[in-house]
Amino acid sequence: MPIGELRFSSQSPIAVVDSTMNNDETWLWGQIKAEARQDAESEPALASYLYSTILSHSSLERSLSFHLGNKLCSSTLLSTLLYDLFLNAFSTDYGLRSAAVADLRAARERDPACVSFSHCLLNYKGFLACQAHRVAHKLWNESRRPLALALQSRIADVFAVDIHPAARIGKGILFDHATGVVVGETAVIGNNVSILHHVTLGGTGKMCGDRHPKIGDGVLIGAGATILGNVKIGEGAKIGAGSVVLIDVPPRTTAVGNPARLVGGKEKPSQLEDIPGESMDHTSFISEWSDYII
Amino acid sequence: MPIGELRFSSQSPIAVVDSTMNNDETWLWGQIKAEARQDAESEPALASYLYSTILSHSSLERSLSFHLGNKLCSSTLLSTLLYDLFLNAFSTDYGLRSAAVADLRAARERDPACVSFSHCLLNYKGFLACQAHRVAHKLWNESRRPLALALQSRIADVFAVDIHPAARIGKGILFDHATGVVVGETAVIGNNVSILHHVTLGGTGKMCGDRHPKIGDGVLIGAGATILGNVKIGEGAKIGAGSVVLIDVPPRTTAVGNPARLVGGKEKPSQLEDIPGESMDHTSFISEWSDYII
Amino acid sequence: MPIGELRFSSQSPIAVVDSTMNNDETWLWGQIKAEARQDAESEPALASYLYSTILSHSSLERSLSFHLGNKLCSSTLLSTLLYDLFLNAFSTDYGLRSAAVADLRAARERDPACVSFSHCLLNYKGFLACQAHRVAHKLWNESRRPLALALQSRIADVFAVDIHPAARIGKGILFDHATGVVVGETAVIGNNVSILHHVTLGGTGKMCGDRHPKIGDGVLIGAGATILGNVKIGEGAKIGAGSVVLIDVPPRTTAVGNPARLVGGKEKPSQLEDIPGESMDHTSFISEWSDYII
Amino acid sequence: MPIGELRFSSQSPIAVVDSTMNNDETWLWGQIKAEARQDAESEPALASYLYSTILSHSSLERSLSFHLGNKLCSSTLLSTLLYDLFLNAFSTDYGLRSAAVADLRAARERDPACVSFSHCLLNYKGFLACQAHRVAHKLWNESRRPLALALQSRIADVFAVDIHPAARIGKGILFDHATGVVVGETAVIGNNVSILHHVTLGGTGKMCGDRHPKIGDGVLIGAGATILGNVKIGEGAKIGAGSVVLIDVPPRTTAVGNPARLVGGKEKPSQLEDIPGESMDHTSFISEWSDYII
Amino acid sequence: MPIGELRFSSQSPIAVVDSTMNNDETWLWGQIKAEARQDAESEPALASYLYSTILSHSSLERSLSFHLGNKLCSSTLLSTLLYDLFLNAFSTDYGLRSAAVADLRAARERDPACVSFSHCLLNYKGFLACQAHRVAHKLWNESRRPLALALQSRIADVFAVDIHPAARIGKGILFDHATGVVVGETAVIGNNVSILHHVTLGGTGKMCGDRHPKIGDGVLIGAGATILGNVKIGEGAKIGAGSVVLIDVPPRTTAVGNPARLVGGKEKPSQLEDIPGESMDHTSFISEWSDYII
Amino acid sequence: MPIGELRFSSQSPIAVVDSTMNNDETWLWGQIKAEARQDAESEPALASYLYSTILSHSSLERSLSFHLGNKLCSSTLLSTLLYDLFLNAFSTDYGLRSAAVADLRAARERDPACVSFSHCLLNYKGFLACQAHRVAHKLWNESRRPLALALQSRIADVFAVDIHPAARIGKGILFDHATGVVVGETAVIGNNVSILHHVTLGGTGKMCGDRHPKIGDGVLIGAGATILGNVKIGEGAKIGAGSVVLIDVPPRTTAVGNPARLVGGKEKPSQLEDIPGESMDHTSFISEWSDYII
Repeated sequence: MPIGELRFSSQSPIAVVDSTMNNDETWLWGQIKAEARQDAESEPALASYLYSTILSHSSLERSLSFHLGNKLCSSTLLSTLLYDLFLNAFSTDYGLRSAAVADLRAARERDPACVSFSHCLLNYKGFLACQAHRVAHKLWNESRRPLALALQSRIADVFAVDIHPAARIGKGILFDHATGVVVGETAVIGNNVSILHHVTLGGTGKMCGDRHPKIGDGVLIGAGATILGNVKIGEGAKIGAGSVVLIDVPPRTTAVGNPARLVGGKEKPSQLEDIPGESMDHTSFISEWSDYII
Repeated sequence: MPIGELRFSSQSPIAVVDSTMNNDETWLWGQIKAEARQDAESEPALASYLYSTILSHSSLERSLSFHLGNKLCSSTLLSTLLYDLFLNAFSTDYGLRSAAVADLRAARERDPACVSFSHCLLNYKGFLACQAHRVAHKLWNESRRPLALALQSRIADVFAVDIHPAARIGKGILFDHATGVVVGETAVIGNNVSILHHVTLGGTGKMCGDRHPKIGDGVLIGAGATILGNVKIGEGAKIGAGSVVLIDVPPRTTAVGNPARLVGGKEKPSQLEDIPGESMDHTSFISEWSDYII
Repeated sequence: MPIGELRFSSQSPIAVVDSTMNNDETWLWGQIKAEARQDAESEPALASYLYSTILSHSSLERSLSFHLGNKLCSSTLLSTLLYDLFLNAFSTDYGLRSAAVADLRAARERDPACVSFSHCLLNYKGFLACQAHRVAHKLWNESRRPLALALQSRIADVFAVDIHPAARIGKGILFDHATGVVVGETAVIGNNVSILHHVTLGGTGKMCGDRHPKIGDGVLIGAGATILGNVKIGEGAKIGAGSVVLIDVPPRTTAVGNPARLVGGKEKPSQLEDIPGESMDHTSFISEWSDYII
Repeated sequence: MPIGELRFSSQSPIAVVDSTMNNDETWLWGQIKAEARQDAESEPALASYLYSTILSHSSLERSLSFHLGNKLCSSTLLSTLLYDLFLNAFSTDYGLRSAAVADLRAARERDPACVSFSHCLLNYKGFLACQAHRVAHKLWNESRRPLALALQSRIADVFAVDIHPAARIGKGILFDHATGVVVGETAVIGNNVSILHHVTLGGTGKMCGDRHPKIGDGVLIGAGATILGNVKIGEGAKIGAGSVVLIDVPPRTTAVGNPARLVGGKEKPSQLEDIPGESMDHTSFISEWSDYII
Repeated sequence: MPIGELRFSSQSPIAVVDSTMNNDETWLWGQIKAEARQDAESEPALASYLYSTILSHSSLERSLSFHLGNKLCSSTLLSTLLYDLFLNAFSTDYGLRSAAVADLRAARERDPACVSFSHCLLNYKGFLACQAHRVAHKLWNESRRPLALALQSRIADVFAVDIHPAARIGKGILFDHATGVVVGETAVIGNNVSILHHVTLGGTGKMCGDRHPKIGDGVLIGAGATILGNVKIGEGAKIGAGSVVLIDVPPRTTAVGNPARLVGGKEKPSQLEDIPGESMDHTSFISEWSDYII
Repeated sequence: MPIGELRFSSQSPIAVVDSTMNNDETWLWGQIKAEARQDAESEPALASYLYSTILSHSSLERSLSFHLGNKLCSSTLLSTLLYDLFLNAFSTDYGLRSAAVADLRAARERDPACVSFSHCLLNYKGFLACQAHRVAHKLWNESRRPLALALQSRIADVFAVDIHPAARIGKGILFDHATGVVVGETAVIGNNVSILHHVTLGGTGKMCGDRHPKIGDGVLIGAGATILGNVKIGEGAKIGAGSVVLIDVPPRTTAVGNPARLVGGKEKPSQLEDIPGESMDHTSFISEWSDYII
């Protein structure tokens, strides 16, 4: 499947109301409340926090809007204004909610340190930055660009995650740790992608136009990787930590190093069996790589 | 031009009152207000923010002081105190204002994602961190070191940009994205330099003395590059993303890799035609590099 | 000494009340107050900050609890709640206090930019993140995990330092600059370690279990280094800036590059004379490395 | 009309949707926005305030909810929570909105110092306390008593206006200046009543039950008047400033003094021609009173 | 019992540790937590507030210190500092705690609008102002006068209750509604006194020395009463609402009017049967008064 | 001297630069700093507050602007904006500064509870409300009415002192305790007036025009007094606590009661020897009054 299609695959399901997903949302919100209730009971010092952020709300969208409004507000952008903005977006756009649900599931399934959905909802800056970005993206598409850019700026200040509001991001995304992630204006990220901290999807210079990477479905990008220019990272590919990638990476292959090269060689790179964005296997290529290098 | 002079070139014009620049400042401020007014009209949800940060102020220095005071304040360093501090610095030091003007122009010209001057003034953490650093640097030079260090700490907390107040930085600087930038005590950055995020201009250990890099005019430093020790990066040089640079880099050459090597070879490195800090071409050396590596 | 013991060496002294250390704490607190008093006198604009954070308190533990409570609070986690939590932890656990004292000394001795103990106490985000982590770790061990994770999240937001509360960290630690540091759940850091910014001690995928690096006593890890998996970095080893380490590194050797290799070669690596975590010599291997590479 | 009916007259119209009033609300909101826009243009220093409180909102109910949420919030009762609460109440209860409209008109018509509707909406603590009370009263009637009492407490702290949430208050009310007003649990206030500051509608002791005053339609109560016990102040009556009233006051009569007596004598008190709650004539009885006294 | 002794009766029991009272405190705190738990369950929107103020705390003194710290803090007097101050006072001074317990009981018993102890603890500005005053009084007696006066000022701003820190106040006090209460420097208030809002215990001019009223045990002072000068209000006396009292009032008599006179006449005033400060009967003298006047 | 002139007497000296007063200001500021320094030394818990409000400032106008900005700010009216506004007013208008100096002296001389100038500057809500009013009055006169009214509203919320910005107030004013003071639009207060809490200078109804009291120089108005309508209180007159005044009061006479009558009788009222606004003798008329009444 060419990467050109991948980037659009993340858009279409968002617009369609899917009753299965709706049940999904209901189930997940019930789960989150149950987790929060248990935590509140076992830890009175945290109960106030859990009630204000989760237990006092009637839905995931309200909880998330409240939490983002309080996290991203400043003395010149009040929490009430942001809350209103987020609530309006999440209430009217089913796709935003379903993407949030998919992201919560992704964190819970892929990150062994993620002990509960509520933990991700409250504490994962990558998750929160991504949801806030989706609202900024929606505003961008509605031509409310100054507001979208102000939101980007607050996300960058508060979470140290800098995603241009024009960037298109699929569902089931895990931004793990997330500090220092930079995603440029014309970047596209497919579905079920996992991206570690300090990852850059950057441009090539001061020319306008399509100048940022396209990341296929199921890709895993290791910590500190820098991918520059309008290159395509094929679905199911893996980018090693600390790599500097300036070339296309074929589907289900691994690129490592600075500058990055394909494991197994340019001509006949090794093929991955599983989907790295989901299996999160960062290091299985080590022996192979060592062989390759030496 | 030797790098030793470069570092001082950033100082002298700041002290001199230049009436041309004054017109420049006036023009730019008019432009910023016009942009903000248009945004406020098209987006009522942002109007309060735009009025408080830009439209209610009579000058760029007041707007900037207000914005920095509110961004950098904490419960123990009040916004009114910081506002006073910034306003006093910007009002009495023409050089600070002219450097801010040059930085705004740099962002607008070099960064295709920078849609307006007001966008940069309000939302670019690199721009804001740099202006606040200049005030900290001024305090440092006036032997108000505890205050300068407290300011550095606030900038590091709020923007994740950690610049020692003793570091000397020229004009026309673009810190793009900026998260994670670290600049050490004896580092010097020339004019018209562009520095991407996660860049380190670090020291060599625990010895005191001159131990940090000197960056010449017009240099471009790619994302995630680490430059360590009292090395000279000649004017118009380019440092590739993710490079680890421990050696001098001659003017108008490119260093890439970990450890960084000169593109074209140590003996006769390829010469750059344009000024990379201004052209922002991050990736043109790719084909050459690939050749060099393989 | 095998790394397996190293990781426990950081635990035992903390539980024992050591009257020598107690004197140490007293002396250090006196020193900090003297520094703050002098700064307050020379800089009235900072006096309010210095009184509220240091001079109005009767002990280091109160000052630190106050400062952390104010730094880490949010609209949903009040400063008074956090202050109470920190004060209770520091008051009842001598080990936390003695570790804080050792960290203050480490910063003062190893970082030439650290001009005073009070400067470190107030302004070093690495120091503050580490002390807050130790409290989170204590809560984790007391099975107060939701609270420990909420604290981790606040530390990650405010300082851009993301340390899992289960990670075990010794004493005499210097997190220099600290932005972007990520330390995983099963990571262990010995005593007298120095870690620069953007360093990752990461896992290997989505499997649970012991999956993060073990860092021996006296190790120095350069800026931007990424160490992945349950590898052992032997005591007194040095990891070069920007390295990507996927292998064990023997004691007193140096690993550099992406992927990292041992300086001097795998079979007979060069032996370091001093303790790099204390000497902080980041660059002495340069000539050797260059030789090795070419 | 007996006072017993008066107290219910304030309830019924609130529950009925009245399209005429709806137009009224629309017209008034347009007026308020026009006033605010003019003020914002003439006074840039206030524009941010006017945009955040009025001009960025799409309806009176949103503006009022935002303003009350920000005024009444505290560190333990967040503005976002209160905003949500107020918005939900005003959105779903037409009576609350129509009462707010009537109160705005009352202030504009009766208080010569009220220069505009927006002035009243933003700045009149009596108006704001009354609207917040109406929401507390609604909560009380829905058996959400702890929340209603918490709201009462915030209103008492912020505006120094202490109205028990069970107290029933009609429409077209002017609380002028308002500081120090106290209204007890079983008090009833009819429509078109004007009450000055420091007025008490107090109880008679520690017995439960119906123990507070009933104020008829169109009554005017002067500054500092104290009315105690389950007494009836007939419609169109006037209570002089500083009076202490422990007796029923017949319709359209005037009571003055400490203890209060009827002007004109108990047997045949002077009859008022106009409705004092609307005419706001505080002092026309002076000559008569003087005669009466001496 | 002469009033001269009365004023000291409020002091002595405070200094003695009374184990019965200790049980009392334990019982009351259990009661408060039970009430708050029930409210939190029935009203999720308030649960965060109830957990942060009551349910997360281990004792009444911690809850009260937290609540007062958050209520009285300002941008220049931080909540953490005040929390520390209050907690230290309440923890070390049993008398402060036992007085708080007695005041909570007084409100619950005497005020029919006081539906629960937790309601009083959280929402009664009179109760909160009185507890904060007691701490200010303690500071005053310890010669920490600037701090005591700063506290008085915050209480006056936040609760509109202005009590000089030198004023001595007994136990079992009900300040009902409380707005506008003013108590001067040399005023003394006995035990089991009830004081309504707008009551002034004022001085006589600019002379220093003992110049304010002495209020005996069990006195009831009605709303808006003004008592001026070093006059004695005998135990069990009652002062009518709105009275202006410039004379001594014998025990168990009633003074009303402006200027106040004794009900029943100066020579042989009517004797009260019950203790008005406890029975809270504000109006039983009405018929008698009316007779007296006319 | 007719009251008509009195009201202007408060205006003229304010506009003239008086070098004697300038020395006065310098002396007073030195005094305030010395007091604050001594308090900061004796009470470390207050030092931060004293440094931020007084000791870090270079002049009384900066200290006062800072303090008022922080006291009166809200989430929609930022402290930096208010600080700027106050500083601009106090810096450019000598009259505002000289009136503040006179008010500080008045409190110190007349109020025995006022232990120092710094105590008044920091803690007297009457003093602070009056200074803020003077700035609002200046804005009103410059036709910046919406801003003046917003300021009035903040003063009324924060200090419970409600003074219309059009009201003209002289110098050397003591608002003692101040809670609940209301001063209407066309009221005029002369120089050296002392006004206790709960005093109303109110209007007569809904007619526009000159409808509020005119208070001559040196007048003393007791607590809770209500003066209504365009009546003249002659210079050096005294109004008893709790009085309700609807009539002119001749110079140097005393009015008491509800309704107020002249002590000594309407025809030949007793003449006061001293200036009550300065001597603050509230009660010397008691015996005379008693005689008069009975």
